[in-house]
Amino acid sequence: MSIAVVNFSEKFSRIGELHAYKLVAQMNDYHFKLVRMKREFIWHSHPETDEVFMVIDGRMWIELRDGTLSLGTGEMVVIPRGVEHRPYCREECRILLIEPAGTLNTGNAGGDLTDTGLEWI
Amino acid sequence: MSIAVVNFSEKFSRIGELHAYKLVAQMNDYHFKLVRMKREFIWHSHPETDEVFMVIDGRMWIELRDGTLSLGTGEMVVIPRGVEHRPYCREECRILLIEPAGTLNTGNAGGDLTDTGLEWI
Repeated sequence: MSIAVVNFSEKFSRIGELHAYKLVAQMNDYHFKLVRMKREFIWHSHPETDEVFMVIDGRMWIELRDGTLSLGTGEMVVIPRGVEHRPYCREECRILLIEPAGTLNTGNAGGDLTDTGLEWI
Repeated sequence: MSIAVVNFSEKFSRIGELHAYKLVAQMNDYHFKLVRMKREFIWHSHPETDEVFMVIDGRMWIELRDGTLSLGTGEMVVIPRGVEHRPYCREECRILLIEPAGTLNTGNAGGDLTDTGLEWI
């Protein structure tokens, strides 16, 4: 039986660094990625896809052009395609992202914070 | 700002009955559905899509032809397309399902347990 249960706590315990996105599951052409985040991210959007943020542990904020969302443990949000957003975490937050394979964390903005080292854990 | 944060606990508090699937989010053409489950389900598969089960609170089992998966709070699994499975919960379990819009809970099996009353909460 090769179908593996993903335990978020166990997976996070294997992630030694902040801001390194790790792949834990794939559903059709969608990736499920974990990240330990503690930073102010940049404004960006994903013109081609919606994106899900789910907080596994901690608190994050997502600034939008017309307000700021606050998400705690056990909360999620869908950022619609094309909507500019700027995520940030004041303290470390453990986040699950769900989006199509190949979606870049910096979306249309690019730049130095673009993560290109995605690996399975 | 019309983008709403989904709080799983708050959403579950609005679900009065077992086995009624409720829609809480949509990402592209994928639905995020909550269900309070306490039953033995039927064997079925989804020939056209993978399917994600995530346990928000409780424990569920998913019987496969070659073994049984056990998932507790904070765990998820991807059941690949075409793989026969039979979910069951001995006590009430609160589950998030992620799958393409239009995916039926009974997959290829059909029958009386097919849920057709999906609504947004």
